[in-house]
Amino acid sequence: MERAAAGGAVIGYEDVEAAARRIDGVAHRTPVLTSRALDEVTGARVFLKAENLQRVGAFKFRGAYNAITALAPERGVATASSGNHAQAVALAARLQGLHAAILMPQDAPPSKRAATERYGAEVLEFDRYRDDRDAMARELAQERGLTLVHPYDEPLVMAGQGTAGLELLEEAGDLDLVAVPLGGGGLLSGVATAVKALQPRALVVGVEPEASPDFRRSLAAGRRERVEISRSICDGQLLPEPGERTFAVVSALVDEVVTVSDEETVATMRFLFERMKVVVEPSGASALAAVMAGRVTLDGGRAGVVLSGGNVDAARFAELMSTSP
Amino acid sequence: MERAAAGGAVIGYEDVEAAARRIDGVAHRTPVLTSRALDEVTGARVFLKAENLQRVGAFKFRGAYNAITALAPERGVATASSGNHAQAVALAARLQGLHAAILMPQDAPPSKRAATERYGAEVLEFDRYRDDRDAMARELAQERGLTLVHPYDEPLVMAGQGTAGLELLEEAGDLDLVAVPLGGGGLLSGVATAVKALQPRALVVGVEPEASPDFRRSLAAGRRERVEISRSICDGQLLPEPGERTFAVVSALVDEVVTVSDEETVATMRFLFERMKVVVEPSGASALAAVMAGRVTLDGGRAGVVLSGGNVDAARFAELMSTSP
Repeated sequence: MERAAAGGAVIGYEDVEAAARRIDGVAHRTPVLTSRALDEVTGARVFLKAENLQRVGAFKFRGAYNAITALAPERGVATASSGNHAQAVALAARLQGLHAAILMPQDAPPSKRAATERYGAEVLEFDRYRDDRDAMARELAQERGLTLVHPYDEPLVMAGQGTAGLELLEEAGDLDLVAVPLGGGGLLSGVATAVKALQPRALVVGVEPEASPDFRRSLAAGRRERVEISRSICDGQLLPEPGERTFAVVSALVDEVVTVSDEETVATMRFLFERMKVVVEPSGASALAAVMAGRVTLDGGRAGVVLSGGNVDAARFAELMSTSP
Repeated sequence: MERAAAGGAVIGYEDVEAAARRIDGVAHRTPVLTSRALDEVTGARVFLKAENLQRVGAFKFRGAYNAITALAPERGVATASSGNHAQAVALAARLQGLHAAILMPQDAPPSKRAATERYGAEVLEFDRYRDDRDAMARELAQERGLTLVHPYDEPLVMAGQGTAGLELLEEAGDLDLVAVPLGGGGLLSGVATAVKALQPRALVVGVEPEASPDFRRSLAAGRRERVEISRSICDGQLLPEPGERTFAVVSALVDEVVTVSDEETVATMRFLFERMKVVVEPSGASALAAVMAGRVTLDGGRAGVVLSGGNVDAARFAELMSTSP
């Protein structure tokens, strides 16, 4: 609690650097994509950090691998996740020769569950409407003597995600603004820590779906607030409340949090598909959607944007393309 | 005619090298993608030359830019094309400050026509079922004093496309096999010229859709034969007859031509989308489809494969994903 209250003290730049050394040669150093068409549309220079091309298809591998190698668990790891963090922990554990027990919701997409099992993890079920997943994960860890790897409210996970920001700055050079998808806040915390250490003048903006504006609301209130979640295609960002540690970092370091609509996100996924030939999942496209929809002010500057993941079935993508013009 | 009959003499390796110098810094040096999942499925090491990420979304820019800069037309250029070559000529002409007059079929996809016009080209129409497009293009060029840039049966175009093969070998190192989508034969001629000069032991395989096996049939007959074209999703490869010059090069240098079904191509597009997060159009995926469907023998070797283009609308992609499981 004290560490969390201190804001920037939850993690420091040196933690991101240490994470970069741990993941070196194991995580992909994903490319930074640029596009004349995108620069024309936005009237700016945009640099896209393509974490959809990361191992397991999302930035989550960075944090999971950093945490698991740093914690060096004796008996294995446990976590609860409905999505990309599950696959990330499963793969990171396998690479370290460790057992992974992962709580997934009963109604998780079969493809995500299958991918997690393919990496050798043991999948247990919870009910996403009734059960307290965090409490269940803690219990599971305690019972079996496993080490818990929280999807975002864990400093080593936050620092690991920050390496995506580090690489973006190394590749793109000076930036006026960095926009990052925001769900639990692990990615945004890590990236903000890297950006504010290396380029303190660059604005850092978090982007969450309109359906789940918990960070925006909480920042306005000055304390963590719980929101009602509406339906949204951005399934990676639907959390009712900021993490305790991530909220501390975001409060201290992030300049602004904005929201995007599902329509804006679908239009951005289509642009990425048709003009840039890359597949990005809804949550993964949200930060670029905010930039393209003019929800952040660029003024012809240089913007770094994280495309955080690409795990969307072709059938689901087809559905999304047909629901919106 | 004499040059064509001499096979390898239509173009030589030095022509591909000259093209590489001309396009340097203007065409993208596209990445070579690899994937653990792909290697597992094929039991080989596969290197994908991602020409879907080329300017205008296809390898066609290489040949068009090479031809237009080498020919240095005084008044402008003309061509006939239903697809990616139209956009490639339009952009290459604009970069050289030249006028481009392009014959496109009346029923060309609106998005392809719009893209061609966006690059500043003048678009004229022809009837793809009634008109002889080559004759019309020659007439147009003669009337207006424009320089003709044939989509494939032009040595400078063939040499330009060959630079994709050159870069693939530079990046991937020694290969046992190189598989290339085959329509008019420009890309295959150029790539085969590069591969046989640099790695003469590597097999070169052309891949055409089952719906249009004109090269396979012609090679078996020992002379150019005309085939009936059936319906296929591979719209970039539906030509009834090999080019005269491309047939000469393919006869001399290519080891084998195989065919793929539309189902195999759709399955490959889905794999590329879901596992590798890249968008490839049907014709662009055909060579990889042949590799994944076991239509070429790999025996655990190292295979280079050209993904030749990525121009498919999101709506069309959605349609393709829903027609096949």
